[in-house]
Amino acid sequence: MATSRWTAVPARTFSPRRRGPVLERAILDAALDQLSTVGWSGLTMEGVAAGAQTGKAAVYRRWPSKEDLVVQALRDGLPRLDGVPDLGGVREDLLQLCRQMRVTMFSRPGFALRAVLHECDATTAERFHEVIFEGVIEPSVKLIKEVLRRGIERGEVRSGGTEAFVCDVIPAMFMYRTKVCGSEWRDEEFEALIDQVMVPLLRP
Amino acid sequence: MATSRWTAVPARTFSPRRRGPVLERAILDAALDQLSTVGWSGLTMEGVAAGAQTGKAAVYRRWPSKEDLVVQALRDGLPRLDGVPDLGGVREDLLQLCRQMRVTMFSRPGFALRAVLHECDATTAERFHEVIFEGVIEPSVKLIKEVLRRGIERGEVRSGGTEAFVCDVIPAMFMYRTKVCGSEWRDEEFEALIDQVMVPLLRP
Repeated sequence: MATSRWTAVPARTFSPRRRGPVLERAILDAALDQLSTVGWSGLTMEGVAAGAQTGKAAVYRRWPSKEDLVVQALRDGLPRLDGVPDLGGVREDLLQLCRQMRVTMFSRPGFALRAVLHECDATTAERFHEVIFEGVIEPSVKLIKEVLRRGIERGEVRSGGTEAFVCDVIPAMFMYRTKVCGSEWRDEEFEALIDQVMVPLLRP
Repeated sequence: MATSRWTAVPARTFSPRRRGPVLERAILDAALDQLSTVGWSGLTMEGVAAGAQTGKAAVYRRWPSKEDLVVQALRDGLPRLDGVPDLGGVREDLLQLCRQMRVTMFSRPGFALRAVLHECDATTAERFHEVIFEGVIEPSVKLIKEVLRRGIERGEVRSGGTEAFVCDVIPAMFMYRTKVCGSEWRDEEFEALIDQVMVPLLRP
């Protein structure tokens, strides 16, 4: 009675056979884990399979190469940049956007992405640059443009304020100061960027 | 008599033993040649020595490694950025400066530098990034600052116009649009950068 059903259940019920999205998620998580611990060079399909407690075939069935696997793990793992800040003023909105970009860049997948770029060869790097472009740059520019468009409507931003080069200034400064100055983007640095550059650039 | 001294001179007088700066220059030129033809991976100290018509020992005596040799060849070879444009107005001066930066970036050593960065490993890349910083970025920022300082004196530029972040905008946009958009910086693009961003940013 007390023993009947429960004691009969075999131990492996507790790690049930996972399928579809659940198994996929476990493999992608394991890939990010491997990147953080052994890096791009150390990561193997076997290691990822072991980390996800599945077989190598289950990994290869979905991703023909280590590169394909890692590209998707990073793409899916990067925190999304999709909320347009709406704090009532363009200065505060841009500061908020910068903080959102920092969250993405300094997330675990963000760090992993920079580390991979440091380790992989030039051809592979092109695919990872695409992940940065599609996951960080493109959405940032879109959000910046929307913030500036609203600023124009409020009369806070001059009419040319959404031109292509204007919308590129923040991501350009991010890339430049991260690479050239090794910046970690403390809040004061965001304020300097917005107050020294964006506010004067946008004023009507 | 007529034969004595001159006929006795051996053929190698015509490629005399070069020393010091002349030989050094020949080796550095040969290194740039090798970079353009066989790239970073293909470049060897033997190949450079052969190209410079000297022995391997003459190369190693001056540069203990291929990396040291190439760093100096690129550093010496990059066209200097040192004349402050003075065309009477900040818009024209900045356009002129952008053109000077383009000359440096698209010089033979400039191309070679980008190709090397594409080929070499991450540790070596750090030294080449320094060459870009010291040979392109740092002098550009210095010249931009001087142009803006003169603009402030003429009342053409607002008083905060030489702040650090302001002086970084042009090199940041250069780096970003070259990397992200694969830009080759046609004149119209310089004009867009200056007219959409720098002129509004600097106006008093």
